[in-house]
Amino acid sequence: MTDAPMTVQAAATATAGDILSRQLTAQAGAFLRALPLAVGEVGARPGSAATVPSSGTADLLRAVRRIGGLLHTFGAVFEQSWAQESRTELRWLLNLLALEPGYVRRSARLLGAVDSLSGTDPEGTGMLAGHAGAPKARALLDRQLTLARTRAHSTVLQELRSARLHALADRMTLLVGEAPLLEAAGGRASAVLLPHAAAAFGALAVSAQQLPLQRAATPYGGDGLRRLGPVPPARVASADADTALAADDAPWSRLRILVKRARYALEVCGRPSSELDELDAVLDRHQEAADAAVTAATAARTPRITPATAYVLGVVHADQRLEVEAARYAFGRRWPDLRPGLDGWLEIPPAEGWGHSPAPRTA
Amino acid sequence: MTDAPMTVQAAATATAGDILSRQLTAQAGAFLRALPLAVGEVGARPGSAATVPSSGTADLLRAVRRIGGLLHTFGAVFEQSWAQESRTELRWLLNLLALEPGYVRRSARLLGAVDSLSGTDPEGTGMLAGHAGAPKARALLDRQLTLARTRAHSTVLQELRSARLHALADRMTLLVGEAPLLEAAGGRASAVLLPHAAAAFGALAVSAQQLPLQRAATPYGGDGLRRLGPVPPARVASADADTALAADDAPWSRLRILVKRARYALEVCGRPSSELDELDAVLDRHQEAADAAVTAATAARTPRITPATAYVLGVVHADQRLEVEAARYAFGRRWPDLRPGLDGWLEIPPAEGWGHSPAPRTA
Repeated sequence: MTDAPMTVQAAATATAGDILSRQLTAQAGAFLRALPLAVGEVGARPGSAATVPSSGTADLLRAVRRIGGLLHTFGAVFEQSWAQESRTELRWLLNLLALEPGYVRRSARLLGAVDSLSGTDPEGTGMLAGHAGAPKARALLDRQLTLARTRAHSTVLQELRSARLHALADRMTLLVGEAPLLEAAGGRASAVLLPHAAAAFGALAVSAQQLPLQRAATPYGGDGLRRLGPVPPARVASADADTALAADDAPWSRLRILVKRARYALEVCGRPSSELDELDAVLDRHQEAADAAVTAATAARTPRITPATAYVLGVVHADQRLEVEAARYAFGRRWPDLRPGLDGWLEIPPAEGWGHSPAPRTA
Repeated sequence: MTDAPMTVQAAATATAGDILSRQLTAQAGAFLRALPLAVGEVGARPGSAATVPSSGTADLLRAVRRIGGLLHTFGAVFEQSWAQESRTELRWLLNLLALEPGYVRRSARLLGAVDSLSGTDPEGTGMLAGHAGAPKARALLDRQLTLARTRAHSTVLQELRSARLHALADRMTLLVGEAPLLEAAGGRASAVLLPHAAAAFGALAVSAQQLPLQRAATPYGGDGLRRLGPVPPARVASADADTALAADDAPWSRLRILVKRARYALEVCGRPSSELDELDAVLDRHQEAADAAVTAATAARTPRITPATAYVLGVVHADQRLEVEAARYAFGRRWPDLRPGLDGWLEIPPAEGWGHSPAPRTA
């Protein structure tokens, strides 16, 4: 982030509008700087060459997430239809941009899992060491994920030249210094922003409370493999493993979004968010393991694979569900200690906190 | 156990020989009562009908384990060649008798795992819910384990009529009231027995110390699946998953035997052993999960199975390795708290402890 922190004097008298405009200007600026880089990067490489998300795309994703989060949490002080449209367009770009790096990470995760499970290193032998199915399963996963990545690449390439993206870029250009704020934004920052930030934390707390966190905090309960939650009644008719797993993971995916929103709200308020950053990372791991598990299960349904390949994919599937369970355990262990602290963060009088720019982060 | 506890007066003046003779008389009596029942039970049922180990066999196993443990731990005060021969014969009978109930338990464990993993119960849906391979994998495991059980049954049936068993029964008959003790057994119980019991605990502590207990006590470290220990140099040439898994489990199997010996030594000393009973149960679970994992991996190598069947067996294999890891976690968590206590148990002056018969247990 290149925006200079406000002075303490300026921060103490800032209105909510000042704080939000400043944040939006900074993030919209970051968006506009990263966009041509991201477009150039995507265009410059063939679909399968990417191994890590390039820095332009990562910066763009970072800005998109923060602007979207800000418009969600503090949406009430913006012109409603503008905020709503902006969020829709930002979400579209987020989903688009996240696609290819997502496949890159999933590929690294799954091929890494096969390598680790079939490894013969004396210090870390895997339960599939030397198994004949391991190279075949690895090749199958690699092929399917490369194909998915190539398709995602084409889609991104096409959409990055679209009128829709140009319109969104124009929207971001207008946002620099000129956010369409309502009159309410003229109030003192603490009076206007804190209730909205508190609401974001409230939504997070409610969502966490509905999860079996106590059970998750007991290791090896089999929650990721054997004791999936009930399938919602509407989907019981098509009850199969995919439905059950998706229903089981859904509240955790929702929780992940709420943690990100709370995290970005703290950033806007100039408060440290390291505890939430940690939880966010844990839930990212949950999401990636759950997605990787689906990919392994899907690969196992490929016609005409050998039983040895299918067997290895079964082990990999269970291994990734185990990672899901481990991430829930990590969350379940940390959340109860953290929750009481959330109120504390918001109750501290915002004397010098306002306007302090958070330390740069990459996510 | 039907032996009456000694009075406190008698216990206070008892020699080591008194204590050991009394224990051996009681256990040899239990052996001789259970033997005809066990023989009758095995003979009365067809090989595949058993679902739980019958009570005669369980009582016989119980007595065999305790006599064998006693002769190992306190072997130095018995006539050497007699004690050695007796242990060899008891171990033979133990392995023979444990075979069939072992397959019954393994079958219950593995079929239960398939049912649980493929269950569609709203409260406990599994990650293989409704999977087409689940009934096939279940049928395959059931068929292979029933076959193994039937073979074991025939072997047991044959050996229970053997001269070798008759000779062992005669040996037990002679043992009632007349254990071939050396002169050393005439010493005070505390002076003679405690050093031997302490040696059993010492062997246990040394064995536990060589295990990565700290790592095991950190949940989800992947120790059961990904980070198996190094394969002994002698077996590296044939390094495959089976070898690696067997090498990884071996020190835990050894530990299980040492825990049982320490437990039986405490029983002889009339001390409570509930902590060790718990650890013993944890390591039994470790052993059974490790054995079940091998069975699942072996079943997956059956020629001409479908990929769906193999996939389910892969999930089951990983699931059982996860149980292995969970058992190690449970042990790693309990051991450090317990270890300092072991010395304490042995250091208490044996005032009224001697001769108190432990509460009856089933294992």
